[in-house]
Amino acid sequence: MAFHIVLVEPEIPANTGNISRTCAATGTILHLVRPLGFDTDDRTLKRAGLDYWHSVQIMYHDSFQEVRELYPEGRFYFASTRATRYYTDFEYRDGDFFVFGKETKGLPQSLIDENLETCMKMPMRTDHVRSLNLSNSVAIVIYEALRQNNFIGMD
Amino acid sequence: MAFHIVLVEPEIPANTGNISRTCAATGTILHLVRPLGFDTDDRTLKRAGLDYWHSVQIMYHDSFQEVRELYPEGRFYFASTRATRYYTDFEYRDGDFFVFGKETKGLPQSLIDENLETCMKMPMRTDHVRSLNLSNSVAIVIYEALRQNNFIGMD
Repeated sequence: MAFHIVLVEPEIPANTGNISRTCAATGTILHLVRPLGFDTDDRTLKRAGLDYWHSVQIMYHDSFQEVRELYPEGRFYFASTRATRYYTDFEYRDGDFFVFGKETKGLPQSLIDENLETCMKMPMRTDHVRSLNLSNSVAIVIYEALRQNNFIGMD
Repeated sequence: MAFHIVLVEPEIPANTGNISRTCAATGTILHLVRPLGFDTDDRTLKRAGLDYWHSVQIMYHDSFQEVRELYPEGRFYFASTRATRYYTDFEYRDGDFFVFGKETKGLPQSLIDENLETCMKMPMRTDHVRSLNLSNSVAIVIYEALRQNNFIGMD
């Protein structure tokens, strides 16, 4: 079983590093859509403590559209604080894609507008905090998808 | 509804920072058991980007035993890669405590041995990765507890 995480223009290397660790731990495929807010040469990764980088299947893309065209049958879910449905309102299955935007701004409004039916949010008490940390949001969604699928193949 | 997170001797300020953000976003109470691997004065917190520190209810303790004695009726669950049950195998309710050890070593073996019945792990493919990032583990458990309780009171 493998899900896909798509990070559209991530900015903070420590977040992508934590996400690569979660992907490595769960057999999730990681898609990074350029431009990235950091270099991915070995020296930079090492300095940022991204030890799991080489245990993950990572694919690089120049646009989100490119990912979509690569997987015409893929089911794509979009994380947004502007969504009306919770991430737990959907039934996920093997091969599904979860798309997350940049830390400071989230996904482009146009992408949200075009995909309202499959936008999802994390429930929060928004009086205190505007959003969760990106790597935490990704981890929550991956583990919900795995839970729904009975953690098949995991220890 | 409020759950409790207990971090026993956390080492890395960015992790505790992310956890404080998740706690602020969910109304979760954060307990920190000393010694901490970082200072909690305002200057250090600011430098580490711990912007949500003052939006969270944080309690400091000198030992885990002290937490337990403060809440004699509390139900405590212990995160450990050595657990046999998944974190999804339990039914959580308002006021439950989730206890996490330090990043490098996890919880003391004695604490695990004394609480085997309520130890829980995250399912993983352990051929690649030994554990998840601490803040990600905490986020996954909090959101599972909230999910089971229908995200009452959240946006």
